Amino acid sequence: MRALSVSALLLLALGCCWGTQDNFLDEDVVEPVIQASKYGSLWPLPQKVQISDVPLKLSGTTFEFTDAKGSTAGASCSVLQNAYRRYFDYIFGGPKKQKMSRNRRSGPTEVTELQVSITSPDSQCDGYPGVTSDESYELSVDAPVAVLKAPTVWGALHGLETFSQLVYEDKYGAKTINSTKVSDFPRFAHRGILLDSSRHFLPIKVLLANLETMAMNKFNVFHWHIVDDQSFPYLSRTFPQLSQKGAYHPYTHVYTPADVKMVIEFARLRGIRVIPEFDTPGHTQSWGKGQMDLLTPCFSGAAPSGTFGPVNPILNTTYDFMSRFFKEVSSVFPDGYVHLGGDEVDFSCWKSNPDIKKFMDEQGFGQDYSKLESFYIQKLLDIVTTTKKGYIIWQEVFDNGVKLKPDTLIHVWKGNQEQYQSEMAKITSAGYQTLLSSPWYLNRIYYGQDWQNPYKADPQDFKGTEEQKKLVIGGEACLWGEYVDATNLTPRLWPRASAVAERLWSAKEVTDINDAYNRLSAHRCRMVERGIPAEPLFSSFCPHEYKGI
Amino acid sequence: MRALSVSALLLLALGCCWGTQDNFLDEDVVEPVIQASKYGSLWPLPQKVQISDVPLKLSGTTFEFTDAKGSTAGASCSVLQNAYRRYFDYIFGGPKKQKMSRNRRSGPTEVTELQVSITSPDSQCDGYPGVTSDESYELSVDAPVAVLKAPTVWGALHGLETFSQLVYEDKYGAKTINSTKVSDFPRFAHRGILLDSSRHFLPIKVLLANLETMAMNKFNVFHWHIVDDQSFPYLSRTFPQLSQKGAYHPYTHVYTPADVKMVIEFARLRGIRVIPEFDTPGHTQSWGKGQMDLLTPCFSGAAPSGTFGPVNPILNTTYDFMSRFFKEVSSVFPDGYVHLGGDEVDFSCWKSNPDIKKFMDEQGFGQDYSKLESFYIQKLLDIVTTTKKGYIIWQEVFDNGVKLKPDTLIHVWKGNQEQYQSEMAKITSAGYQTLLSSPWYLNRIYYGQDWQNPYKADPQDFKGTEEQKKLVIGGEACLWGEYVDATNLTPRLWPRASAVAERLWSAKEVTDINDAYNRLSAHRCRMVERGIPAEPLFSSFCPHEYKGI
Repeated sequence: MRALSVSALLLLALGCCWGTQDNFLDEDVVEPVIQASKYGSLWPLPQKVQISDVPLKLSGTTFEFTDAKGSTAGASCSVLQNAYRRYFDYIFGGPKKQKMSRNRRSGPTEVTELQVSITSPDSQCDGYPGVTSDESYELSVDAPVAVLKAPTVWGALHGLETFSQLVYEDKYGAKTINSTKVSDFPRFAHRGILLDSSRHFLPIKVLLANLETMAMNKFNVFHWHIVDDQSFPYLSRTFPQLSQKGAYHPYTHVYTPADVKMVIEFARLRGIRVIPEFDTPGHTQSWGKGQMDLLTPCFSGAAPSGTFGPVNPILNTTYDFMSRFFKEVSSVFPDGYVHLGGDEVDFSCWKSNPDIKKFMDEQGFGQDYSKLESFYIQKLLDIVTTTKKGYIIWQEVFDNGVKLKPDTLIHVWKGNQEQYQSEMAKITSAGYQTLLSSPWYLNRIYYGQDWQNPYKADPQDFKGTEEQKKLVIGGEACLWGEYVDATNLTPRLWPRASAVAERLWSAKEVTDINDAYNRLSAHRCRMVERGIPAEPLFSSFCPHEYKGI
Repeated sequence: MRALSVSALLLLALGCCWGTQDNFLDEDVVEPVIQASKYGSLWPLPQKVQISDVPLKLSGTTFEFTDAKGSTAGASCSVLQNAYRRYFDYIFGGPKKQKMSRNRRSGPTEVTELQVSITSPDSQCDGYPGVTSDESYELSVDAPVAVLKAPTVWGALHGLETFSQLVYEDKYGAKTINSTKVSDFPRFAHRGILLDSSRHFLPIKVLLANLETMAMNKFNVFHWHIVDDQSFPYLSRTFPQLSQKGAYHPYTHVYTPADVKMVIEFARLRGIRVIPEFDTPGHTQSWGKGQMDLLTPCFSGAAPSGTFGPVNPILNTTYDFMSRFFKEVSSVFPDGYVHLGGDEVDFSCWKSNPDIKKFMDEQGFGQDYSKLESFYIQKLLDIVTTTKKGYIIWQEVFDNGVKLKPDTLIHVWKGNQEQYQSEMAKITSAGYQTLLSSPWYLNRIYYGQDWQNPYKADPQDFKGTEEQKKLVIGGEACLWGEYVDATNLTPRLWPRASAVAERLWSAKEVTDINDAYNRLSAHRCRMVERGIPAEPLFSSFCPHEYKGI
């Protein structure tokens, strides 16, 4: 990775701290004191870490990753073998790779080997990560052998990232790592990024680059908000007309089954789950283009107006369609969960439609259209249950009192701090598991250091019992797509999402904004060196600036 | 350029207009109605344009740019010859170029030639553009010959850009241009972009890409805020220790004389002036690292505190240094103007220093430190006057009552609309020329369509006579560097700066936000096709999305 040397970190310190013509900072935002953190550039901070003063060297001509004797995953495990190549490249850099020496003599203070040991009988190498996966690892760096132990390959991947983050260059440019002990595990099991490929189509290249960066930040869930009102880029084998008619372009702006498979495998190799969201009954304008009679015809007085509203909840054909559609989804996406949306249903079209009115009367719903919404969602949840998937739904579904399976995840996205904390309390007191996103809508930009407020939010800060707190399984940073596409998505997401990554991984007590600033500055320069255009936190420089434009 | 076809423009229309979970738009911001503009993708809109319904074809195998008989610039004019190659590439695209046909038979509705005629005796081909340059042009598109007439090469460059913007693809992908007449000239002579290479170093590649994009938007001034408190990347031949000590890094983060020369020539070939800013007496922390005794030593009680304030205005050595430094600057930068800054001088250090106090008493300045500031600036202006340059200064210098040459440009950057309008009125009623930037601080981002407010600001909207209005020579969009570097600068600047480009070029009456939205959406897709990561205005797609990440 051509890591930052200590001298480079000190140089970073020079570039900061004077007031400037346009430096209108948010009043709550701390103006950081710049100095190298005692934790170097580690991000997110491990649960336990002891870095000694003893510097050891690494050489690209001798260093090896090896599978420990007795490890339950080895040469045939592509998750590990791919990761070794990736991290060798990060640590020793691109073009100037030297030939591995046959005569592997090494100095007394040289680390020549990182021995990787998977300790569970089931390494999970050929499986997929899941919400119950053990992601812990233990890392011990010594000369000549460093040791990484993890119950599963998913923990080992995190350990490899941490190992690479411990490597730096001394003042002569020599690869160096201090003797170190790390014992690490995530605070929350679900640490996600939502990307939206409907408001703007996101080329596969962009998705993969962001999965790569997620791994550098120990995120483990890609929440793929794949379709919405604006476009339907998912090419369905069962209903190909959905993207044929509903995508921005049926050939250049779709994800084929092969594309989706590639995204899922690329993610798996980095310990990342892919959870697709197919949001209904609202947010479905693009679905209606390829699927006749799926959406509710809106009326203007006594006649259809020609426009359409949410999914039509009163037709049997709707549920036939959903059964076949979600059956496909459940086989295409291996994760145990699917996100069903359920947010922001606009009732005005339903209210205008005489058939819907009649149905409301028959069912005894009166004027309460949220009962109709619940009627729909209830039937949808039953359909998805038959596919053996768990489901995640936006908070409105819970707010409307729909009957939910006990293992449902309720995703909180609305409101200010007081409001979302009260929602989290309600959900957990009803015994449901929950995910937080409200403070992490990273699409909402503002001028200044806008990583600090997301960093300060804590998903367990609400009034509730210890039992309730345990029902918080994590959160997601969301980058909705109205204002981002391939041109600006990556720098807008990173390193702002890194702030969320540390909140979801590290111990609750890790809240020192100054220390975070210093580690994060170095971490962002590392992402830049790895080819990711992660934007700056504030006035500063990186030893190697981004090579693109 | 593989321009947008009309059908592509209509497709663009599909991607928009539903309310969405995170669509919190500014209340003043208009939600646009999407439809192709009758002006296609022209940006900025020419002063007069008549596009007929007659479609003509262009072929990469036959089309030529030619120098008209009697033109005062031709085969030996590198400004034109370079531009022909650039625009051929934009129009006919990159890899699939065909060999020019010897047998140049053409259909009756084919444009085979754009004849370029420079009409002034002095074409200015070997010179530099300046504030008094004539940038007008007349373009007439017909078959088989289109004609572009301009008094100078600078006008011809704008005409070539307009010609390229008129080309689109028909539904079969054929290059098409409608028979058209354009008569065009800029509303304001000074249309600038400020980039700041001190808070973050901007690699040459980034500067050049943005100059390229400026030309696509008919900007004609690159205001290079090259040094500031944070770093001094300008490698001075006379005082090399300034960057040796004051740059972020003396080798990797500096602009050598060859770099500066390359930037100036690249800009000249695109009709862009390069005006450097060397801001004093404040904003000079980085200068003090390489130049002993230049800055004022601050005192803590009776002893020096070890920190330094603004330039020390009471030493003769200061003025010797400035004389030699600005002599170099005046020869390195060919433009007729240099920007001398003069903003935000913090008096606290001066107040702490006993020698300064003594000097204040001797001069009879009392406690009025703005008099000391004026004393310094006055001497600096006299120095710069001897180099035969005009100067631009930030508004504080005028506010403090410094005596200014009549041709001084006063740059307004402070305040809200009411405040900057009152400042513009004051400056022009005192008979000075002025430049506006207050509404165009594009570093200040916010969520939503933040191109609309900059688009609505008009530099001549203030209370004053017609004579006063004429003293407004233009404005500049500023992208201060605290939060931008190579990773995010380009998408953050474009197409937001394009809004300012149209305000400064097009007629005052061009204010239709809907029409602007539609033209600008297409213009931004064109910039993307030309390899510039210009960010989206709102939910939408481009026929060819950005290829980077």
